[in-house]
Amino acid sequence: MELNGVVIEDTFAEGFSIWVSRVLITAATERLAKAAATEATGFACSVIMCPAEAGIEKYVSPMETPDGRPGYIIEICHPKKAELEHQLLERIGQCVLTAPTTAVFDAMGEDATEQLKVGFKLKFFGDGYEKKVNCEECGKTLYSVPIMGGDFLIEGNFGIKKGVAGGNFFIMAENNTAALVAAEVAVDAISMVEKTITPFTGGIVASGSKVGYTNPKYSFMAATTNEKMCPTLKGKVEGSEIPEDVNGVYEIVIDGVDEASVKAAMKAGISAAVKIPGVKKITAGNYGGKLGPFQMKLQELF
Amino acid sequence: MELNGVVIEDTFAEGFSIWVSRVLITAATERLAKAAATEATGFACSVIMCPAEAGIEKYVSPMETPDGRPGYIIEICHPKKAELEHQLLERIGQCVLTAPTTAVFDAMGEDATEQLKVGFKLKFFGDGYEKKVNCEECGKTLYSVPIMGGDFLIEGNFGIKKGVAGGNFFIMAENNTAALVAAEVAVDAISMVEKTITPFTGGIVASGSKVGYTNPKYSFMAATTNEKMCPTLKGKVEGSEIPEDVNGVYEIVIDGVDEASVKAAMKAGISAAVKIPGVKKITAGNYGGKLGPFQMKLQELF
Amino acid sequence: MELNGVVIEDTFAEGFSIWVSRVLITAATERLAKAAATEATGFACSVIMCPAEAGIEKYVSPMETPDGRPGYIIEICHPKKAELEHQLLERIGQCVLTAPTTAVFDAMGEDATEQLKVGFKLKFFGDGYEKKVNCEECGKTLYSVPIMGGDFLIEGNFGIKKGVAGGNFFIMAENNTAALVAAEVAVDAISMVEKTITPFTGGIVASGSKVGYTNPKYSFMAATTNEKMCPTLKGKVEGSEIPEDVNGVYEIVIDGVDEASVKAAMKAGISAAVKIPGVKKITAGNYGGKLGPFQMKLQELF
Amino acid sequence: MELNGVVIEDTFAEGFSIWVSRVLITAATERLAKAAATEATGFACSVIMCPAEAGIEKYVSPMETPDGRPGYIIEICHPKKAELEHQLLERIGQCVLTAPTTAVFDAMGEDATEQLKVGFKLKFFGDGYEKKVNCEECGKTLYSVPIMGGDFLIEGNFGIKKGVAGGNFFIMAENNTAALVAAEVAVDAISMVEKTITPFTGGIVASGSKVGYTNPKYSFMAATTNEKMCPTLKGKVEGSEIPEDVNGVYEIVIDGVDEASVKAAMKAGISAAVKIPGVKKITAGNYGGKLGPFQMKLQELF
Repeated sequence: MELNGVVIEDTFAEGFSIWVSRVLITAATERLAKAAATEATGFACSVIMCPAEAGIEKYVSPMETPDGRPGYIIEICHPKKAELEHQLLERIGQCVLTAPTTAVFDAMGEDATEQLKVGFKLKFFGDGYEKKVNCEECGKTLYSVPIMGGDFLIEGNFGIKKGVAGGNFFIMAENNTAALVAAEVAVDAISMVEKTITPFTGGIVASGSKVGYTNPKYSFMAATTNEKMCPTLKGKVEGSEIPEDVNGVYEIVIDGVDEASVKAAMKAGISAAVKIPGVKKITAGNYGGKLGPFQMKLQELF
Repeated sequence: MELNGVVIEDTFAEGFSIWVSRVLITAATERLAKAAATEATGFACSVIMCPAEAGIEKYVSPMETPDGRPGYIIEICHPKKAELEHQLLERIGQCVLTAPTTAVFDAMGEDATEQLKVGFKLKFFGDGYEKKVNCEECGKTLYSVPIMGGDFLIEGNFGIKKGVAGGNFFIMAENNTAALVAAEVAVDAISMVEKTITPFTGGIVASGSKVGYTNPKYSFMAATTNEKMCPTLKGKVEGSEIPEDVNGVYEIVIDGVDEASVKAAMKAGISAAVKIPGVKKITAGNYGGKLGPFQMKLQELF
Repeated sequence: MELNGVVIEDTFAEGFSIWVSRVLITAATERLAKAAATEATGFACSVIMCPAEAGIEKYVSPMETPDGRPGYIIEICHPKKAELEHQLLERIGQCVLTAPTTAVFDAMGEDATEQLKVGFKLKFFGDGYEKKVNCEECGKTLYSVPIMGGDFLIEGNFGIKKGVAGGNFFIMAENNTAALVAAEVAVDAISMVEKTITPFTGGIVASGSKVGYTNPKYSFMAATTNEKMCPTLKGKVEGSEIPEDVNGVYEIVIDGVDEASVKAAMKAGISAAVKIPGVKKITAGNYGGKLGPFQMKLQELF
Repeated sequence: MELNGVVIEDTFAEGFSIWVSRVLITAATERLAKAAATEATGFACSVIMCPAEAGIEKYVSPMETPDGRPGYIIEICHPKKAELEHQLLERIGQCVLTAPTTAVFDAMGEDATEQLKVGFKLKFFGDGYEKKVNCEECGKTLYSVPIMGGDFLIEGNFGIKKGVAGGNFFIMAENNTAALVAAEVAVDAISMVEKTITPFTGGIVASGSKVGYTNPKYSFMAATTNEKMCPTLKGKVEGSEIPEDVNGVYEIVIDGVDEASVKAAMKAGISAAVKIPGVKKITAGNYGGKLGPFQMKLQELF
């Protein structure tokens, strides 16, 4: 199958189950909201070595937020529910409560299957000076915690649900910069797809891993570079998966609230990437279906 | 003492010792370098609940970097040396190695008192396909690890030293927005001071803490809001430190490679903040000199 | 009338008729599209001394553009039709055709009452090497002009219509920074309202004018500062319109495709501005209804 | 000659004389200064069809500006002195005086050979309410004009001199995206070179022109596309200058205060561009030395 002259391989992205939270951060201005959302979702590319997977999902205009101020929805994800709560407490408590003019609302809403008492616990920072307040315009009960910058407002409960991690596709291009620009525009496109994030730096993954090692001297490593996907090793390793005319490869990794959203993000990203001259092939990563319960087939997206 | 009509209180910021690393991230473009630097220094406001304190120190032009590409110097700090190494491995390994076109160099140079084998350890990701390469133009030996996006380059050792955490000053203004704009411009000014970072979100701290609690029902809390610094509690709590004409307060927290740099940053930040109409007073936070070895007196900065 | 404790004055904004064009610029990436849109709409605050009024209306995701690439819609406005065509030729010809990877589409669509042959004329730059091409995915006929960066694509005709200039409101606050932050968030909010732009620098106007002069020595001036709206002249000039408790004033000026859009923008902007602590009053500018055909009453917006 | 494996052609960029002004815009925050600088330098790629050539030269930290606030230096250029004064009055009067919290200073200093009374003329906007003020901290006499946002400050005279326009080089790469990323990083590098600007959109030029036309039906055109530099016409036009292995070309155009600065910018830009994989050749544009007095030879830069 081809799209705009680019080969779409007959394969699938293998996704895993992950606990997902969806949090709306509002602030006096769009910039302040974005700064808090960025800090709270940093150091969160992959749970392999980061304490969470997280990213900014989308901007929400003042006309659509509970408090009539600009905001950003972020998603914070972790395979373990208890660890997700821990991450929410730390990331909201240290990166958002401490940031100027912020308020924090649950954005999972009716999609939630469980609730975490994140705001209820953070309010103890108020040392008894905090109050319950009724937000008349939004019909919610909030905790109001006095701080230097005014009063920090937060909802008591934050909904979570089992979502999907590991949505992905690989962009293969005739050189590195074509693959890179295609990856950038794919992330641009995905940024408009609701309920999904691209947790890596700028949404783009430059290094692929394999489980374990091939070099027996490196047996202490749990994961190492996937040499078959390295353009600079093409022709030097057995079974290289880099086509003759490809010299640059980047991967986009997507987490989301549900499988349909992750698929919509994959479709949007691939549709945008194939517009870039020099892109040759789109493929995806999987473990033969042995590990993850979700199989998102590339060709069926279109 | 007054500066531009603003009271500079006769007090001092109390600083603590912290292990500091200084890392240069270069990339094909300025934007790519900044994206990696931002992700690697996220979730790093305060070691109270974040796994590190970190921030972007400065931009380095292609004419000044070892590989002739644009870059950013970041600082990552932790009170414990072993934990700092752990953070460097995780943050560089997950947020920089995985980001497009990056290379990573030690930027502590001769200021270092000890070396951590960060690049030496990360290179094992190469599964034996990595190589030692001589960077002729920069006179350094680097590890080259093949990845999808090309070859990731990193120095073997990264220098660290005992630096200073907790440099700080408070901006008090007649209302919240005046304090906020003053805090923003203070951070702008500090961003030009070498060897220092402002680790909080956008460099600004909106919530002040006290050790422990006053409300006996909250005895499980190690730290709670400093009610004496809350404008909305002025007149409601005993011993409020908020002057009559002040309704907005923000703090700037500074970490740095040495005390002189932190003092220079405090001076630059205060000098910029007092230019903003509505700013009334600059003060600083300390524990009476009982806890931290560094006493940075505000009035002596000028 | 009060909104969130802020007085909404019983007055109206007086709007004028202006020719409006609406142009979609797409590019390989969001950043490239934005750079071209920014350059093409620069030096375009007010037709008093700028050659046009122009601004970025909104981002359009790759999923919604004719060529599946990210884009921005800009509006370029001028009271005279012939001059508007001139501005379109110059701004698209010099700031967009010359910018990397761009394509340009009409975005006025069915709202248009007349058509200008902008693309038809710009295509002559191709020196006979240009071609007519059918854009299959978008069902449009485009001109394709070969340039260094590839082929520049542009539609032949661009629709225009008589729209509304001079939508406005003034934000009065207890100090300058509160007014400024309120103005910033008002512009943030308006940026989400379709078919409108805020043509001044960052959308905010810091200086108000009156027609003519009061000082007889300045009789050569067609317009001078409106001293009654200057906080620093409060108490020094007769008839100052600055309330006792106000020390900062900014205006938001809005142009749009039709009156309904301009009113929606005014409503969105005012709703956001009154959320900022320290804002005291919202008013609007008019000439008693003598000059402009549109009277947009503030209180009727709500 | 080769640099990093990229051919540096034995040719020269031909520069022209142009009147240059150098203006410092400061504001309360870095963002506000940048917004004003951006608006004032928009619609200013080339005097062929734009009313000026202009761009942002560099950021100036609060520690280095006359008023201790952050600022940006812009350059505005025009071949005719009277037209340059006109542009300064319009661009400062409409895009900077009207922008929040700005002040404007001469930044040409001792390089100037003549002075334009820009501030002296703009101050009449004050209608007699303006004042001369002594800026004690900067040792300058300024005009203070009351406006809604406070008092606008501006120096009386702005220095100008004959500088150099048309510094340039072309980046030829194996595909469009490689040329584009190389162009972007070249502009990044040049942005650190004092006294120079890159006036086109994002600093990059996507379309090359030739004087006149080749198609006799287009004899009304003064300039048309340079078909010999169009990759999509390679093999279709006589005398194509696009090498076999090149499919993407972008040009960087540089204006500056003097020839040495323009050469330094060319060197910085080329040095950065050749680092990008896929770049094949650097060349430059000239008219055989017949038109412009400056011949900047590429190979002599290194």
